[in-house]
Amino acid sequence: MSVLVVGSVALDSVETPFGRADDALGGSATYFAASASHHTRVQLVGVIGSDYPVDKLHDLEARGVDLSGLERAEGESFRWRGRYRHDLNSAETLETRLGVFSHFRPKIPDQFRSARYVFLGNIDPRLQLDVLEQVTKPKLVACDTMNFWIESRRDDLVRLLARVDLITLNDAEARQLSEEANLVKAAKWIMAHGPKTVVIKKGEHGAFMFHADRVFYAPAYPLEEVFDPTGAGDSFAGGFMGYLARNDDLSEASLRRAVIVGSVMGSFVVEGFSIARLLEVNGDDIARRMAEFHRLVAFDAELP
Amino acid sequence: MSVLVVGSVALDSVETPFGRADDALGGSATYFAASASHHTRVQLVGVIGSDYPVDKLHDLEARGVDLSGLERAEGESFRWRGRYRHDLNSAETLETRLGVFSHFRPKIPDQFRSARYVFLGNIDPRLQLDVLEQVTKPKLVACDTMNFWIESRRDDLVRLLARVDLITLNDAEARQLSEEANLVKAAKWIMAHGPKTVVIKKGEHGAFMFHADRVFYAPAYPLEEVFDPTGAGDSFAGGFMGYLARNDDLSEASLRRAVIVGSVMGSFVVEGFSIARLLEVNGDDIARRMAEFHRLVAFDAELP
Repeated sequence: MSVLVVGSVALDSVETPFGRADDALGGSATYFAASASHHTRVQLVGVIGSDYPVDKLHDLEARGVDLSGLERAEGESFRWRGRYRHDLNSAETLETRLGVFSHFRPKIPDQFRSARYVFLGNIDPRLQLDVLEQVTKPKLVACDTMNFWIESRRDDLVRLLARVDLITLNDAEARQLSEEANLVKAAKWIMAHGPKTVVIKKGEHGAFMFHADRVFYAPAYPLEEVFDPTGAGDSFAGGFMGYLARNDDLSEASLRRAVIVGSVMGSFVVEGFSIARLLEVNGDDIARRMAEFHRLVAFDAELP
Repeated sequence: MSVLVVGSVALDSVETPFGRADDALGGSATYFAASASHHTRVQLVGVIGSDYPVDKLHDLEARGVDLSGLERAEGESFRWRGRYRHDLNSAETLETRLGVFSHFRPKIPDQFRSARYVFLGNIDPRLQLDVLEQVTKPKLVACDTMNFWIESRRDDLVRLLARVDLITLNDAEARQLSEEANLVKAAKWIMAHGPKTVVIKKGEHGAFMFHADRVFYAPAYPLEEVFDPTGAGDSFAGGFMGYLARNDDLSEASLRRAVIVGSVMGSFVVEGFSIARLLEVNGDDIARRMAEFHRLVAFDAELP
């Protein structure tokens, strides 16, 4: 099994209280792919400009990420420049230059069209819908989104909801989309518009998964040093989808484990800049942290 | 076994988006006692003014709360008036009238002095220290505090830390006390100053317990309606201490269950004004919600 991801491939320049990185690999599809590649093969669709340091992507290819859907267009690559201050929960965007990404029209290569697991990264919902026209019978389609699309493309986004099985979004986005302050109500609103499963990411406060009438909650791993929070959400999604694709099991037990795998991958990526930590860790590290997540929440429900 | 609590007994007037209550039972000791009384006998030490509607306390007495340490002083009772708007996480204080509470000097009745489990509710650290002079060989002493004392009584509070086994405080207070933004570091700082166990309450984001080199995390119960958040922290503490006192077991497994019992009691109290819900629920309700907490976080750590 493999997973298809469509999203941004960018160059990020990030300042945090702990240091800075310039023109480092970034973008939703990049983080997703680096994370998912620990669990399954990945097919990536995106666009880069003529200035992109393509050799830096070899590490991803070596990890089983198929870049044949990565278009190279004439012009500048998507660049994001941001800063995190003391509160590592919110990035301050200093500059966004869309470059070739502003004309991105995802073209799914023939050999990717039969993908069973599809992740529509955070791009214009019209493009996300367009991708769905190009794939045939996926078993699970998941999407991400953001406040910008909720404001500017609400109708398209609601049309997209009706066609996806699962959505990942953060708590503020869930509230904005549903116009419900309460997250349980927000999740119900979203499920009533299509997705059977809603994953609400709360950053350092963990993640909720709403699935039918059940709720599952995974904490964030209590790290002593959060180095750079960029990409945590996409790395979560990569771990989540990668785990599901590898095991091809959509039972509730499997979805719960997938949330934990996503949380594990998110906890690694923030330990370094860009995808550095995702390239360093191995299966043992992942299994060990998964066990730590278990110890973090384990208790005996029986009252003596 | 029983638990001794020293704290405020107040009259609260609260407005929330869902309604309002006037001169309802409030105060840290009141919430603590109502919650702990589901698990063990409670000895309460506090002060009320001559205007306090004492008959409203009969419900607590009927639940096994010994009020012989509740002093009646000439003057007005402690009154708090507050409002919660859309964001139920933070109260807006409209008025605080300390009344007789401003001259409160806790006097522990002889028959309470041998208490094995002691909870020092959120009062002046000098008074909390004073209580410790009046009790003999407690097995577990826990305290709460707040931003006001961290600012105005830091030295006394640090002296208190050296003499308690456990502290409960919220995330902002933990950061303020330790001057560490990271909660793991904040907990380590606090533990280095005395308490073997630190419980950091994060409101709707759950609670961490740091104990030796282990971390335990309990989510908040995902309620669809949070009616009035007042007293959630003290109800948490009441469930936590009440559970420990009943079972007289300070193993890590027991401390973990105590955190969940505290979270369960906190999840009930916010479903109504004042202590109304704590007086309504029974042991079956508590056991049922405890099982729901278990389902909320349960996953199989083995990767297939």
